[in-house]
Amino acid sequence: MRAAVLRGGQMVVRDDVPEPVPQEGQVLVAVKACGICGSDLHFAKHGDQMVRLTREITGMPVQGGLPVDLGDDVFMGHEFSAEILEAGPGTDAPPPGTLVTSLPVLLSPKGFEPIMSSNTVLGGYAERMLLSVPLLLSVPDDVDPRHAALTEPMAVGLHAVNKSAITAGEAALVIGCGPIGIAIIAALRLKGVEHIAAADFSVRRRELAATMGAHVTLDPAQGSPFDGATPAVIFEAVGVPGIIDDVMRRAPLGSRLVVAGVCMQPDTVTPLFGIAKEISVQFVNSYDHNEFAETLRAIADGRIDVSPLITGEVGLEGVGAAFDELADPDTHCKIMVTP
Amino acid sequence: MRAAVLRGGQMVVRDDVPEPVPQEGQVLVAVKACGICGSDLHFAKHGDQMVRLTREITGMPVQGGLPVDLGDDVFMGHEFSAEILEAGPGTDAPPPGTLVTSLPVLLSPKGFEPIMSSNTVLGGYAERMLLSVPLLLSVPDDVDPRHAALTEPMAVGLHAVNKSAITAGEAALVIGCGPIGIAIIAALRLKGVEHIAAADFSVRRRELAATMGAHVTLDPAQGSPFDGATPAVIFEAVGVPGIIDDVMRRAPLGSRLVVAGVCMQPDTVTPLFGIAKEISVQFVNSYDHNEFAETLRAIADGRIDVSPLITGEVGLEGVGAAFDELADPDTHCKIMVTP
Repeated sequence: MRAAVLRGGQMVVRDDVPEPVPQEGQVLVAVKACGICGSDLHFAKHGDQMVRLTREITGMPVQGGLPVDLGDDVFMGHEFSAEILEAGPGTDAPPPGTLVTSLPVLLSPKGFEPIMSSNTVLGGYAERMLLSVPLLLSVPDDVDPRHAALTEPMAVGLHAVNKSAITAGEAALVIGCGPIGIAIIAALRLKGVEHIAAADFSVRRRELAATMGAHVTLDPAQGSPFDGATPAVIFEAVGVPGIIDDVMRRAPLGSRLVVAGVCMQPDTVTPLFGIAKEISVQFVNSYDHNEFAETLRAIADGRIDVSPLITGEVGLEGVGAAFDELADPDTHCKIMVTP
Repeated sequence: MRAAVLRGGQMVVRDDVPEPVPQEGQVLVAVKACGICGSDLHFAKHGDQMVRLTREITGMPVQGGLPVDLGDDVFMGHEFSAEILEAGPGTDAPPPGTLVTSLPVLLSPKGFEPIMSSNTVLGGYAERMLLSVPLLLSVPDDVDPRHAALTEPMAVGLHAVNKSAITAGEAALVIGCGPIGIAIIAALRLKGVEHIAAADFSVRRRELAATMGAHVTLDPAQGSPFDGATPAVIFEAVGVPGIIDDVMRRAPLGSRLVVAGVCMQPDTVTPLFGIAKEISVQFVNSYDHNEFAETLRAIADGRIDVSPLITGEVGLEGVGAAFDELADPDTHCKIMVTP
């Protein structure tokens, strides 16, 4: 079976991946579409740092950091839709041919295994993969499989908005209009927020932000996004060192900062900025099953139109080049892999 | 009139301070007691850095940073109780002899002026000072003026607890049992929180934490305060570089960190720690009028007993030596100045 895998920092295509065999409670699926996520690019570039940092973290339900050996091939691809081929033994599943998506988690005798970056658990950059029946969400018939695959990143946006507890009348500022910033804008719009400003250096990304529901777009090169504006909630979706400190320095008194950008490096902040203004900083990461399902419903019934996000489509053999192309914010937002 | 002032990084006593004259809406008061706050020690040591950092901050109601000239004498002392001597012209105030406390703010034709660290606004390290009638809180007759003076730091604790939105059944961990950590413990107890753990390297401070209501005390030298514990809310009341990062690395999934310690230096954090566990970080600073009044009521009716905090008492001439002594956590918690 074919899959694009991370090997020595590069995405390469293998055609000798063993065919996955569904266990009880699992289904074998044929991947129809898989979005390339910024976190995959991050991982390809900074995987060693990420593995090392996660090993330092304690207080997690599962200790020990990301169980990934970067010296071995890494399977990735966590924004997918797929068609059911076959259920595991003694497993009651939707019929073959059903289009599904799922939280990127595989339930196995080992417990929860993320479908994210793994030496053993296949992801969406493969012809086929395994999914867990309890986590399956059936995709309505008329929904494009590429759109269904974008449930995952859009759910990240919905979760960030939910965690902010923003109300419709409060002003939001979204800093960074890559896929996560765009997902946040879509979720803010879905929640009826009436004042959404979005900032990005890229004109293409600002245009996309407006298309997806931002009421105002701002170019940080032309002036601080905080000039004359007092957002109640600021969503940071850039994830580079220095941005948290810069936001805390400029943000209004009492504002809430939601950190959705994933900065992989240690970063410098000035606590006094936060203290002086009693800022709250909510770090966010993923979503829960309800948010995932709500996002799929919103995509299916057109309340979130993800089609403007899709700027490219490649087969497995094009994944490596797509990783490189995505570095340029003016060219691409989301490239879909259709194995 | 006499006052202890900050001059060139040292507290010195002046006897030539011009007698303050109450304006309309103000009262002249005789200071009965004033607590020495850690932030005063910080300011005496790092005032230049603090002034510089606050000048960088935007988004505040009043821009421009702390309006303090460190080349000139600085008045301080913001934890005070005082007796009314005389009201300003045309001012309806409680009668002379009334013991009062107040938020450390002076209302003047210039607007709000903090009673904190100022070249012009007198603080509690003086024989007499000015207060604003709308902010006065009368102290019940049987309350020790030294206890009433501690309304201010204890209100900081109540505010931190309120901002955390902790519920009685949630576990709290207080890191650092200096005056602010102790105020947080007292406020947690006031709010009926049933699981309060407190960590400090100093045995004296741990004893005080237990006296003030901590159910468990921990010595970080003997092991991580997070070993075997999963606090829902962590109060950081240390304020040194590295502590926020260390807490984020060790804290449980989804925990809320309240930063009440005032770290004056830029600090390094690893955003990935916060992201991986969706930690929220709430910076806190002061309190509102209701929290201040609630704290005074709790002190007056004995629900908060502040007497164990008081470890020393000096006149104005002893302020300089007291600043030095407070550096040792095993000797002192709160030294009261009784001018």
